[in-house]
Amino acid sequence: MALIVQKFGGTSVGDINRILAVAQRVIQEKNQGNQVVVVVSAMSGETNRLIKLAHQIAHPPDGHAERMAYSREMDMLLSTGERTTTALLAIALQAQNTASCSFTGRQVGIITDETHMNARINKITAERLKEALDKGIVPVVAGFQGINRASDVTTLGRGGSDLTAVALAAVLAADRCDIYTDVDGVYTADPNIVPTARKLTKISYEEMLEMASLGSKVLQHRSVQFAMKYQVPVCVRSSFTNNGGTLVTKEDAEMEHEVVSGVTCDKNQAKLTLVGVPDRPGIAAKIFSAIAEEKIVIDMIIQNIGQNGLTDLSFTLPTENAEHAQRALLNLTSETGVEEIKLTKNIAKVSIVGGGMRSHYGTAAKMFTTLASEGINIIMISTSEIKISCVVDAKYAELAVQVLHEAFDLGNLPTGGS
Amino acid sequence: MALIVQKFGGTSVGDINRILAVAQRVIQEKNQGNQVVVVVSAMSGETNRLIKLAHQIAHPPDGHAERMAYSREMDMLLSTGERTTTALLAIALQAQNTASCSFTGRQVGIITDETHMNARINKITAERLKEALDKGIVPVVAGFQGINRASDVTTLGRGGSDLTAVALAAVLAADRCDIYTDVDGVYTADPNIVPTARKLTKISYEEMLEMASLGSKVLQHRSVQFAMKYQVPVCVRSSFTNNGGTLVTKEDAEMEHEVVSGVTCDKNQAKLTLVGVPDRPGIAAKIFSAIAEEKIVIDMIIQNIGQNGLTDLSFTLPTENAEHAQRALLNLTSETGVEEIKLTKNIAKVSIVGGGMRSHYGTAAKMFTTLASEGINIIMISTSEIKISCVVDAKYAELAVQVLHEAFDLGNLPTGGS
Repeated sequence: MALIVQKFGGTSVGDINRILAVAQRVIQEKNQGNQVVVVVSAMSGETNRLIKLAHQIAHPPDGHAERMAYSREMDMLLSTGERTTTALLAIALQAQNTASCSFTGRQVGIITDETHMNARINKITAERLKEALDKGIVPVVAGFQGINRASDVTTLGRGGSDLTAVALAAVLAADRCDIYTDVDGVYTADPNIVPTARKLTKISYEEMLEMASLGSKVLQHRSVQFAMKYQVPVCVRSSFTNNGGTLVTKEDAEMEHEVVSGVTCDKNQAKLTLVGVPDRPGIAAKIFSAIAEEKIVIDMIIQNIGQNGLTDLSFTLPTENAEHAQRALLNLTSETGVEEIKLTKNIAKVSIVGGGMRSHYGTAAKMFTTLASEGINIIMISTSEIKISCVVDAKYAELAVQVLHEAFDLGNLPTGGS
Repeated sequence: MALIVQKFGGTSVGDINRILAVAQRVIQEKNQGNQVVVVVSAMSGETNRLIKLAHQIAHPPDGHAERMAYSREMDMLLSTGERTTTALLAIALQAQNTASCSFTGRQVGIITDETHMNARINKITAERLKEALDKGIVPVVAGFQGINRASDVTTLGRGGSDLTAVALAAVLAADRCDIYTDVDGVYTADPNIVPTARKLTKISYEEMLEMASLGSKVLQHRSVQFAMKYQVPVCVRSSFTNNGGTLVTKEDAEMEHEVVSGVTCDKNQAKLTLVGVPDRPGIAAKIFSAIAEEKIVIDMIIQNIGQNGLTDLSFTLPTENAEHAQRALLNLTSETGVEEIKLTKNIAKVSIVGGGMRSHYGTAAKMFTTLASEGINIIMISTSEIKISCVVDAKYAELAVQVLHEAFDLGNLPTGGS
């Protein structure tokens, strides 16, 4: 008997008929002799409906304390979406003679830090889950939420239900965590941009981690980190078909040993340039501490060679944080002596990812040459062991993905691959 | 500095503009130098929307265990409605520079028994409420909900938000509990039935208790009981006007000493008649124990004089419990020997209520005469110290209320009254 955690996203539980279909899928898994723990998102549209209601009253305020108070209320508000789905799915299962019980994040003991709207999980007790499983009851858990030490509801940030599912799978030592979504797996590129994109049957945690942080929206980045840390096999699959999906797992001999496994593109990027930064120790520290205090994660940083004791400093960050960061830095200009803070939004980050890069030379050169041959200028570059990212003008984003997919021959099955 | 609990019902928070208006009312009370605790219902329509979603999946099942499991899920589902309102109102207050914080039933320590969908409050700690008040924060509490010992969400039954408000007012020793609703007070009769009905400025707990249990929907019965027990002054008022409302309080010298203060009508009544009940000790106990086990509250009971060792037994109960009770009793027929169980739905209970009845004679006679003069047959009668109720054919309900209101001259201010 295997223990499977099944997670269903918003479109998978988008209306009553889909909830009934999900119930069938759960029962099917149970009838194969497996234990099942279900994690659900809010019904699609529900979270946006709630955000809209809140925004009709007030948008997030600027001040730190005010923002904290507002965020606490947003968590109270948004956490209702997942709860609704859990109750409805539990009722659907019960109606099919399958014992089931809904649980909130609190009830399964998901304890987080104090950061509202983007909390981190500190601990999971999962006691009531284990009790339910022992009694043959299918637990349906509200994704995306936990409670902090003050016993206030917190939410785990965008895609947080994936994290709930993977974290519960880790704590329960589940045999597999199935992430049901509206795509049937992880592709070599977004099929909307590259029609010849191919579904991968397996991908390593490391590769998936890079793809998730590079804008591939299939799995939330922190979920993949969590899965890798606790070695939870994750299967990304469609709740609308019976196709096999993509297994995210540790690297093994069977895995495709291609240099590049996928091309991704993230258009949700902005660039802030600080002009006239005094070129002396401590200034950069001051700048990035200010950003960190606002809990904003930045990505690439470039510092130009200084002239006359002044230099320019650029960094990229998610678009939604750009104005917030800009304001935080403007408050610092008297301290840092920075002359100007420029914000550029129309950029995109195009990346190639592949575990095989570790043992191959010339991948970067091939990428740069490919982009250059199309006249695409590279604004910034960053690399890791298994990825190379280039920031380009946003208007070239799709073209860049297409030519890179072609150049690395990703549309065809690798020789000897599975 | 007084401490006021303000409770706003579903129509008072029915849309964003109304929530903003409620925020203004809260701020107004606070600006008068008072501490305020707010209790809210779900936005009007929301509870029905959620019930409809659930019923699209499955209606409440018959079996006891199945019904318990279903009810637990309904509580999880319905409790989201009040939570949504708390967060939105807290955001509205914050946006008006009024420190505010939402709280669930659990967070303010409302501990109930295990009865889902109709739980009783066992204990309220209110610690976080006191902390918030000490810090000058306006707490906005989700009405209608608590948690049981297992830490599952429970709800307090129809009108449960009133109970939350009164119970919190009692625990906090509040100076007053204001129930804001869509009517501006308690009337001598339903103004939709009797155009000359008059608003009462004051009414005693005892009278209000009778009116609430007799179908006047202004205040939930259990809330009035709670208010009486803990001597919480309750003011029923409109959230759409600045009219004075009706104060529900202990009987005092100022109070109108009329024989009859109001006429009520409850059409949500059904009658079950057990035909051929063996006339021997223990049978009635068996019958009413079975009903009590299903947690159904019955109202009037009539047992006819027996013939041939058999008798007929009739009792009234809320319509929504009638079929459930009938099924429970049908399961008992082999034990009780009852021949038939008849269900009658088209009945209404018409009642007159007044604290002055205690010291007046002839009130019942006047009521019966008034009904008889219109040709209205009385099916059952029950009385208490301060009320007389008659069950009549449902088609006469409105007429009965109108003629009784007229007969007892309720449309005119009592001589010497306030």
